[in-house]
Amino acid sequence: MAWRAALRSKAVIPGLLSCSSHGRLCASPTFITQRNNSTSPKIKVDYDQTTGVAVLHMQSPPVNSLSLDFLTELCISLEKLEMDKGCRGLIITSNQPKVFSAGLDILEMYGKSPEHCGEFWKVVQEMWLKLYGSNMVTIAAISGSSPAGGCLLSLTCDYRIMADNPRYTIGLNETQLGIVAPFWFKETMVNTVGHRNTEVALQLGLLYKPAEALKIGLVDQLVPEDQVFTVASQTMTKWLTIPEHARQITKSMMRNPTIDKLRTNREADIQNFVSFITKESIQKSLRMYMEMLKQRKA
Amino acid sequence: MAWRAALRSKAVIPGLLSCSSHGRLCASPTFITQRNNSTSPKIKVDYDQTTGVAVLHMQSPPVNSLSLDFLTELCISLEKLEMDKGCRGLIITSNQPKVFSAGLDILEMYGKSPEHCGEFWKVVQEMWLKLYGSNMVTIAAISGSSPAGGCLLSLTCDYRIMADNPRYTIGLNETQLGIVAPFWFKETMVNTVGHRNTEVALQLGLLYKPAEALKIGLVDQLVPEDQVFTVASQTMTKWLTIPEHARQITKSMMRNPTIDKLRTNREADIQNFVSFITKESIQKSLRMYMEMLKQRKA
Amino acid sequence: MAWRAALRSKAVIPGLLSCSSHGRLCASPTFITQRNNSTSPKIKVDYDQTTGVAVLHMQSPPVNSLSLDFLTELCISLEKLEMDKGCRGLIITSNQPKVFSAGLDILEMYGKSPEHCGEFWKVVQEMWLKLYGSNMVTIAAISGSSPAGGCLLSLTCDYRIMADNPRYTIGLNETQLGIVAPFWFKETMVNTVGHRNTEVALQLGLLYKPAEALKIGLVDQLVPEDQVFTVASQTMTKWLTIPEHARQITKSMMRNPTIDKLRTNREADIQNFVSFITKESIQKSLRMYMEMLKQRKA
Repeated sequence: MAWRAALRSKAVIPGLLSCSSHGRLCASPTFITQRNNSTSPKIKVDYDQTTGVAVLHMQSPPVNSLSLDFLTELCISLEKLEMDKGCRGLIITSNQPKVFSAGLDILEMYGKSPEHCGEFWKVVQEMWLKLYGSNMVTIAAISGSSPAGGCLLSLTCDYRIMADNPRYTIGLNETQLGIVAPFWFKETMVNTVGHRNTEVALQLGLLYKPAEALKIGLVDQLVPEDQVFTVASQTMTKWLTIPEHARQITKSMMRNPTIDKLRTNREADIQNFVSFITKESIQKSLRMYMEMLKQRKA
Repeated sequence: MAWRAALRSKAVIPGLLSCSSHGRLCASPTFITQRNNSTSPKIKVDYDQTTGVAVLHMQSPPVNSLSLDFLTELCISLEKLEMDKGCRGLIITSNQPKVFSAGLDILEMYGKSPEHCGEFWKVVQEMWLKLYGSNMVTIAAISGSSPAGGCLLSLTCDYRIMADNPRYTIGLNETQLGIVAPFWFKETMVNTVGHRNTEVALQLGLLYKPAEALKIGLVDQLVPEDQVFTVASQTMTKWLTIPEHARQITKSMMRNPTIDKLRTNREADIQNFVSFITKESIQKSLRMYMEMLKQRKA
Repeated sequence: MAWRAALRSKAVIPGLLSCSSHGRLCASPTFITQRNNSTSPKIKVDYDQTTGVAVLHMQSPPVNSLSLDFLTELCISLEKLEMDKGCRGLIITSNQPKVFSAGLDILEMYGKSPEHCGEFWKVVQEMWLKLYGSNMVTIAAISGSSPAGGCLLSLTCDYRIMADNPRYTIGLNETQLGIVAPFWFKETMVNTVGHRNTEVALQLGLLYKPAEALKIGLVDQLVPEDQVFTVASQTMTKWLTIPEHARQITKSMMRNPTIDKLRTNREADIQNFVSFITKESIQKSLRMYMEMLKQRKA
């Protein structure tokens, strides 16, 4: 059981979720205003019409936090690509060093109104619905750590290639922060690594080193750090040789039962999230976690 | 992940489905007429009343294509055996060299009327229902390659023993031909190798070499080619020591949820198949595939 | 496949269920009267309020048979612990040498009235419902063999540590006796080791040696025999560092779908058990099994 090793290793330090500023400016209203007014795109898409492959670079310093703005940009980009029938494959990767994505941005959930939290959660759902149900071949080129929402993002893809660097970790570690991964995070993980691995991983909020992640099937392939993107491109070429229509129908058949559960419970899932995250005890957990992040940084 | 190896290996050449004449006579009306008039049995059953074990030899040259005639004979044989309370075990094997079964006969789906396609699909369903729900202990002695419908046939059994010859492959590779494995093929595979292995295998239409098939649990045991049947017989002897009634109820408990899904959706599944397979684009795929088979043969 | 090894090994001797007297007194009414009047507790609970960890010692000689009395005591103990909000972890272990628990007590099912059998089954359900749905962290310190109901007991826990002694076995081997594991035993096992492993294990009534059990995930960790309890305590300490509320909600999310199936079918499941176990043929199987146990003992 790889998660026993994870449990023993230092990988089980809380490292989940993220704070888009990682430190000093973290809870500063000034910062938040700056962030909202920022016009530099958090996502860069390179689409090669000759190959039909788009590469989506996450480039939101310092750790590609999944903020409301980030996810909105992501969803818009995905919608455009999905509608372009020539675009058949999507590689998702990070331009930030050492990190794929640090997950959902705590600042969208801490000290915010229920309305804001609900709006945020809706776009988290939207990202998952778009990616898990994408008609494109989707490959995650995981070039660094990928906790919590970052792990979810990679789990929506058809294939996961991770940098073989033992300093990186991946996992749905929400529980470590006192947060609960919702049922569709859980089902995505069960579909990937099975019920028992998920039960332990989610209860303990485990973060896995690459070798452990490979062992339980949380990622599909490890490659040297400088080859992650190259191998992702080569893999994409192979996947694109498969008859497209049959592959798409097959993918839908495998994933639609899970997708339909969220689609038919979307509003209830938002209410559930909002009432949970706005609890005083949970807000306190978030504050403590952000303070710990600041101290680590300092 | 064994399917990564499969992806790299030559195993991922399209080899699915089959054409009952493998070549020159393939689409010839003359041939089809001959075939329909054929009186030589495509199935030979040896039933040993002293042991309670029947051996079903598939003997339809060249590659045990699962044609309408073949499947009809198979279902009749199964029905007879199932009704004989003395018959407690069934070993399914092939008398053809190098192949267990090459799968569904394309000639039953190419250039045929919707009525014919529907009739054909009904007997494919019937074969699966009878075998996956059999009260007998069923063991597949997989003496050669077993793509597509041949793989499904083996997956219905309680235990799979395959010849350890790296030139043989097994898998549900329908997608490679532009065809989609229906939901009950999918569920049978999920029940055997889990959700994630199935998702990748079906999307890519992977064919696995024996060692890879063993690794993901698509087969249970590999033995030298000349011992496949002997080991199947020995395994049967062990299974038959288990109290029969309790074993049958247990088997039903494990498989009935899947079986019930097809039973309650049988007509819709036929309509779904017929409307898909009679599409012009799919018919074109089938034609191209048969031409490729001819050229390979030539 | 570990169960192939199990099939070859001597592990597949019928060893399931248990007879609370193991031998001469087995079916003696005198004995049963003595047993019912017994005032020595079958369960000893040591609860350390400073750590919040309770240790439940099973101490019903000779083999911790799960009798009506035993299970009633167990359920009362569990209810008390669950209601004490300070009690956050539970280690279940055995004070009997070489055995964790030998499973359900045959004497509660053999020669008994339908009413008695129904009452017995209800408390078996209750034990499972309480443990599989426990808010506490539950760890099984499996210090010896654990067939049938003993295996189920350990499967309800969050983590299983077993003594690494090849003379011990674990498994749901009901089928070997002609009994059928009910659907919730099955689902608990599927949730732990997956569908295919369960299908084979339950059909054949397999008992696994520790190494094989670890391989399929039936237990989580093997340790030298004298360290089972120590490692269980250390593991508990780690699990208790996890934010409690989030862990509990996560556990419920993973297990409630299975628990709800029994909750909503509890009466039907009792009727099903009673009508099965009171059949003449099944009673005969139980008698033969008890006689075999007596002869082995003699």
